[in-house]
Formats: sequence, C-alpha cells, structure tokens
Amino acid sequence: MKDKPLILLSNDDGVAAKGIQELIKALRPVADLVVVAPSGPRSGASGAITSEVPLKCRMIRREPGLSVYECSGTPVDCVKLALHTIVPRKPDLVVGGINHGDNSSVNVHYSGTMGVVIEGCLKGIPSIGFSLCNHAADADFSFTLPYVRRITEEVLQHGLPVGICLNVNFPNDSVLKGVRICRQTKGVWTNEFQQAVHPRGGHYYWLTGEYRNDEPEAEDSDHWALDHGYVAVTPTKIDVTAYEIFEELSHWNLTV
Amino acid sequence: MKDKPLILLSNDDGVAAKGIQELIKALRPVADLVVVAPSGPRSGASGAITSEVPLKCRMIRREPGLSVYECSGTPVDCVKLALHTIVPRKPDLVVGGINHGDNSSVNVHYSGTMGVVIEGCLKGIPSIGFSLCNHAADADFSFTLPYVRRITEEVLQHGLPVGICLNVNFPNDSVLKGVRICRQTKGVWTNEFQQAVHPRGGHYYWLTGEYRNDEPEAEDSDHWALDHGYVAVTPTKIDVTAYEIFEELSHWNLTV
Repeated sequence: MKDKPLILLSNDDGVAAKGIQELIKALRPVADLVVVAPSGPRSGASGAITSEVPLKCRMIRREPGLSVYECSGTPVDCVKLALHTIVPRKPDLVVGGINHGDNSSVNVHYSGTMGVVIEGCLKGIPSIGFSLCNHAADADFSFTLPYVRRITEEVLQHGLPVGICLNVNFPNDSVLKGVRICRQTKGVWTNEFQQAVHPRGGHYYWLTGEYRNDEPEAEDSDHWALDHGYVAVTPTKIDVTAYEIFEELSHWNLTV
Repeated sequence: MKDKPLILLSNDDGVAAKGIQELIKALRPVADLVVVAPSGPRSGASGAITSEVPLKCRMIRREPGLSVYECSGTPVDCVKLALHTIVPRKPDLVVGGINHGDNSSVNVHYSGTMGVVIEGCLKGIPSIGFSLCNHAADADFSFTLPYVRRITEEVLQHGLPVGICLNVNFPNDSVLKGVRICRQTKGVWTNEFQQAVHPRGGHYYWLTGEYRNDEPEAEDSDHWALDHGYVAVTPTKIDVTAYEIFEELSHWNLTV
C-alpha cells in the first residue's frame, strides 16, 4: 500500500487562527499533515525572512497523521525551518492558508500566505495558497472546504510545472458558482493611512487603505471572478522577469 | 526653467547605511531627493507591510534639494508613507538601495530593496533597485556610482512601461565590463540554518544558507552577468500570472 501523501501547512494569521484549523480539517482525509505556522499574526509579511534574530520553534500537538509546530518567525521562515529540520521527508505539497482576507490582484505582493506558497515553489514543491475574502476571526470557511480538498487532490494528481504555484481565492459567498482560472487583476491601494496625534507629540500612522480595481469589467481577472461569486484560481510564477522590454532596453545608452 | 526631477529614495539596510548615503551622493546632481528609509536594518523584509502596530516617522535632515526621514516600519511602509504624507508631489522615480548584498536570481523574492521598488511600480512610478554583491557595512560603492547615475538618467528620459521596474545588481568588482540586460537566474538556497543549543533548553536557529545556481552556464541570466564582471539589469514585473498553464489547468476537474 502506498503511503499517504505528506503536506506541509503554514499561514500568516498564526497557528491558532480558525483558517488553518479549517484547512487541517479539510486535508486530514487526504494526506499526512505537518503544520509549521507562526506563533501569532503575521499578516502582510510577504516573503520576509528573519536574519537579525534567531528563530525558535516548538511542537504543540502530535497525533497519527498530524503534527503541529509553532515558530517565532515569518511565514517564509516557517517553511524554511520545516523543510530543513522538521518534516520526515520532502513534502508532496505545501499549502498556505486558509487566509482570513483576499489575496487576489496586487495583494499577492504583500501576502504572507503567498509568501508560504512562493517559498514552497522556490524549493521545487507544488504549492497552493487558499484565501477567503473575509477578515473576521470567526469567518465561516465551511463552504470553501470541498473546493480546498478538490483543488488539493488535483494538484497531488497532476503536479504543477516547476516555478509555478496556485493562488486560490474564495468570495465570501456560501453559494459558490464554480471555479475560474484567472489572471492577476490590475489595481492599486489608495488612502493608505489613518493619522493620529501621539500623546508625546507628533503623529503616528495606521496602515489601512481602499482597494481600487482598475479593470472591473475584465472577465478574465481574479477580482472579477470573486465579484461574481466564483472561486478564483490564479496560477502564479517565480520568474518575474519582464521579457517584453528586453528589446526596448537594448536601445538605451547604458555605457559609462 | 523646468523643475529638477523629484526622486524618492529608500532601502532595507536602514537610513544610516553607507549604501543609501552613497546613493544620495550619486543622485544629488540629477534630482531633488526625498529619502524615507527604515530607522534600522530590515534586510529580507521583501514586500512586508506593518498592520499590527502603528508607524512613526520623523525628519532628520533638510537642506536645499534633499530631505531625509527615518521611519519605524518596513521598506514598503516607508514608500507608502512617503507617498501619502511626505513628498510634495508624485515623484518622477522611486529608487531603492544601494543594497549591501546581491538581489539577483531568486533573492528578488526576499529583498526589502526590491520591496521598495515593486511598491513604487505598483503606484505607477518608474522604479529602480540597485544592489552590490558585498554585504560589508563599509563596502566600496564608488565604482558603481557612474552606472547608478547613468541608469537613473536613462529611466528619467525614457520612462518604463506601467507594471515594470528594474532590478540592477553590481558585481563586487571595481573594473566593470559594462551592462547586460538579463533574466532572473534559476537557483535555490540550501542548508539554510545554523542550529545552537538554547541556554534554557531546546534549540534556536539562525537563518543563513548557501546559494546554488541551477544554470551557471546561462549567459542571459543575471547571475552569469555578475559572475563575469557585468552590471546585471533585470527588468521585473508586477503581474506574476503564469499564463502558460491556463490551457493545462482548463482540463483539470475542479467541479465539486
């Protein structure tokens, strides 16, 4: 009998977040799970790594088919440390999430969940990020779980090309219309700060902001899919080279 | 007489680092400069943003054509806060660096310097990151400065397409052979941790590692250029969609 697949899970909302607990629930029937997640919230950690201070990591739960560790670092640190010292063999899959909040469009660049996924992909492991467009700590993830399982099983079966991972976002809508393969929407964050007066003088600033979709009518974009009740699957790549301007740059005068 | 261009500078080594001071020196003849940089080292901050705590920012130097601010947050926070509250008008350019250390190949995904640059690009501003393959605090940047100025002037003159920025890396070699337009090298970090015994039990881990170039003979790659004494200019894009697997994914069974 073939061993069950091994999946490494992490997130950026912290090991205690509901989203990763729901992810565990969805994937336990499918695979053996090793969870290595941050000890607290790391939202917006992107691909950050910790180099100035050392990392701590400890096992907090172990039972057949599941072990759970919490780590002092960033989401990417968790994946690196898991692959270096924790997993018994190279995982068949790395999964990030389920994130409390939307990681479609430009959010991929800030997302700690996608930090997890890109790190798995950089290490040559098929990787998927799952996110729900609901920031609430007690968000209802139940309607996403059949899709989480289905997409995970498809990736286990087909694999993914080297250097490509999946960014999967769910609308906050319990009646899902199905899945669309999408591209990253063009958009921008505006009005990004709330300013307040510091009791000892000067100001301090809270990061906030409003997302502006620059192409709300683009039916092939991930934000359109989410706005219209579909699961958005956005394949995402490691090679960020802009090949399309090589020719143009070759005409610049870059001689000193 | 036309106003001088306005350039926003930031980095991930902190406002006091030699690299950004050298960058200021190189670009003062070219433009008015606003520097908004982290108050201390933020190496490996990637595109991280700060949402759990508020940000502080203060002006530490002002003279004609130059103002300098330090900020409590990440490199991306610095750019966001600068654009929201500090700059007198939308800058003509955002420049990150000069980084103490290599940001070619997969390092683009961890780099706080490239976090700065990608944030500028996300905001629709032409953006460039400069990095030197030398981590030393007192690294010699002098031989890079004519290229920093030249490349900056070319970007000011030609602009860059929306959604594309430049990742420029210098070999640590005072006799530069010229500039090559490159693609991102395929490679991977291995052996990423040093483990030590914690005085109160268990272990702690320092992130370190060895870079493995998976295509050392690829003459169009940025790492090849650096290994052979060239300045590597790697155009980099915001849209990380992997369009090449849309067709393949369309055959998967993603119905629940």
